[in-house]
Amino acid sequence: MTTIPGGSGLADTLTAEGRAVEAALERSLDALLPLLPEGLRPPVRHGVLTGGKRLRPILAVTAFRACGGREPTSIPDTPGGAGDGIGEGDGRLHDLAVSLELIHAYSLMHDDLPCMDDAALRRGRDTPHTLFGEGSTATAGAALIPAAGLYLLWSARAMGVPETDVRELLRILARAAGGGGMVGGQALDLEGEGRSLGREELDGLHRRKTGALLEASLELGAVAAGADAPLRTAMTRYGRAIGLAFQIADDILDATATREVLGKAPSDAALHKSTYVALLGVEGARAEARSQVDLALEALQAADLRLPAASVLEELARFVVERDR
Amino acid sequence: MTTIPGGSGLADTLTAEGRAVEAALERSLDALLPLLPEGLRPPVRHGVLTGGKRLRPILAVTAFRACGGREPTSIPDTPGGAGDGIGEGDGRLHDLAVSLELIHAYSLMHDDLPCMDDAALRRGRDTPHTLFGEGSTATAGAALIPAAGLYLLWSARAMGVPETDVRELLRILARAAGGGGMVGGQALDLEGEGRSLGREELDGLHRRKTGALLEASLELGAVAAGADAPLRTAMTRYGRAIGLAFQIADDILDATATREVLGKAPSDAALHKSTYVALLGVEGARAEARSQVDLALEALQAADLRLPAASVLEELARFVVERDR
Repeated sequence: MTTIPGGSGLADTLTAEGRAVEAALERSLDALLPLLPEGLRPPVRHGVLTGGKRLRPILAVTAFRACGGREPTSIPDTPGGAGDGIGEGDGRLHDLAVSLELIHAYSLMHDDLPCMDDAALRRGRDTPHTLFGEGSTATAGAALIPAAGLYLLWSARAMGVPETDVRELLRILARAAGGGGMVGGQALDLEGEGRSLGREELDGLHRRKTGALLEASLELGAVAAGADAPLRTAMTRYGRAIGLAFQIADDILDATATREVLGKAPSDAALHKSTYVALLGVEGARAEARSQVDLALEALQAADLRLPAASVLEELARFVVERDR
Repeated sequence: MTTIPGGSGLADTLTAEGRAVEAALERSLDALLPLLPEGLRPPVRHGVLTGGKRLRPILAVTAFRACGGREPTSIPDTPGGAGDGIGEGDGRLHDLAVSLELIHAYSLMHDDLPCMDDAALRRGRDTPHTLFGEGSTATAGAALIPAAGLYLLWSARAMGVPETDVRELLRILARAAGGGGMVGGQALDLEGEGRSLGREELDGLHRRKTGALLEASLELGAVAAGADAPLRTAMTRYGRAIGLAFQIADDILDATATREVLGKAPSDAALHKSTYVALLGVEGARAEARSQVDLALEALQAADLRLPAASVLEELARFVVERDR
C-alpha cells in the first residue's frame, strides 16, 4: 500500500473514492467491451484495470463537489441508455469521471509499446503488449479514445448535464487527449530522447504529457458542476500547478526509489530522457515541486470553494509531491 | 486518373466536391497542426493529404443535401471560434465533413504500421512510418482521433447545428471510429490473418473496418441536415450496403488489378487474409457486389430525397463497384 501523508482523512477519502472509481471502471467495461471484438477485450481490460491511483477521476469528482455541483442521487434511468451500463444515483458522478481514466489507460498502453518506451513492466505487472502483442495493444489503446468520448456522452446524459455543457466536456477531454495535450507530449517525449532538454522544453513536454489530462480532470469536474468563470479558472490553475508538481515528483521518485517500490524499472533516466532531477538536482527539484504546490494552494484560496471537498484538494496537492510512488 | 463510369455528370461532381474537400482538409490542418508539436506535423500532414477519393466527406455532403439540409451561405463568423480555421459560407459544410476523413487517415496510418499490415506503399507513395518512423506515426495517427472530434465540434458550431444534434454527430463519429467500428475491424483483421474466415466473419470484419465509417458518413450528413427518422434510416441502409459493396470491389481489384493501377502492392491476399474473391470467386464476388448496390438503390427509392443529390448517391452506388481502383 502507498503510505499516505497528510493524515488518515485523506487516506480514507482516497480509498473510498478509489473504490468508487474501480466500480465505475468495471461498469464502463461492461458497457464498452461488448462493442469490441473478442481479441481486443483482454488488452483493454488489462490496460484499464491494472491499478494505479485513479487520481484523475478522483480529482474530477472532488472538483465537482468543491465547485458546488449537485450530485445525482435518485435520477431515474434516462431513455435511450438501454444497456449503457451507466450507474444509478451516486455512481453517476464517478461514471462521468472515468472517461479521464480511459484516456489515461490508453496513454500508458501506447507509452509502453516497443516503438515508444518499450517497457515490459508497469505497476509491477506485465504490460499489455508483452501479453497480447504489439498490434492488438496499439489497436486496443486507440479504441479507448473514442470509447472515452462515447462514455462521457452517455454518462453526462445520465447525469442530466445540459447540452451546451456536454459539448464543453467533450471539448475538454478531446483537447487534453490530443496533440495539444497528451499525444503531443508523447511526441515531444520521443523527440527529446537522447538529448538534454532545457527547462522550458521540459515544462512544455510535461504540461502536455501529464499536465493536460490532470488539468482537464479539474476543469471537467468544474464544468459538470456548472461552475462560474472564477471557479473554473481556479480549478485549471490548481490543475496546472499540481500537474507539474506531479511530474517533478515522478522524476524524484525515479531517481531515488527502488524498482520494488515503483513497480517498474526506473526508466526515464535509463532511456536518456531529460528529467527535472537531471536539470535541477534532487534538492532543486524538491524545491520546485513545493513551489508548484504553493501555486496550487493559492489558486484554491482565491476561489469560493465548498468544504469539505476544498480541503481534500488542498491535501491532494501536498500528497502529489509527498507520495512514495 | 480514375475512370469514372456513369457519365461525366458524376465525374464532374466528384472532381468539384473532391476539390472542396481538399480545401477543407487544408483548412483543418491550418487549425489543427499548430496544436501539435513540430515533430508530429509532417506525419499528420502526409497521412491526411496523400490523395484518395475523399469518398467519406463527399458522401456526407451529398447525404446532407439529399436530406434537404440548408447549406450555410453567409453565416457571420461565430464568436469563440477565433483562429479555428473554419471556412465561411459554402466551405462550412465540407469543414463538417472532413472530420470523417481525418479518422479515415488515422486508420490508414495505423493499418500500414509494421505491427499491423506492414505496408511500405499507399496510393503510390511511401507510407508515413517509412518516412517518419513507427513511434511518430503511431502517435500522429492517435492524435487525429481527438482532433477529428474537436474539429467536428468547431465546424458544427460554425454551421449553427443545434446542440442536441452536435452531440449526436459526435456520437456517430465516435462509434464509427471505435471498437464497434473501424478499430474493431482492424482487430478482427489482425485476428483473422492466416486463417480462412467464413462469410459471416468476413462480413462482420468489413462492416466494422470499412462499412462503419462509410455508414457514419451518410448518417452524419443526414443528422446535420436535421433529417427525420425515415430519411436517416434510408441513409444508413444505403451506407451499409455501399460499404460492403465497396469492400467486395476492393477485393476484386486486389485480385485482378496490377500494382501500377492500385498504387500499392496487392496486399490482402499476400498477407493470407480472407477475401470475398477467395470465398466466392471473382464472378461470385461481382454478383454479390451488384446485389449490395441494388440494396443501396432500394434504400434510396424508399425515401423522399432531394434532387439532384439523390441522383448523385445513385450514381455513387454504381461507381463504388465499377471504379478501377
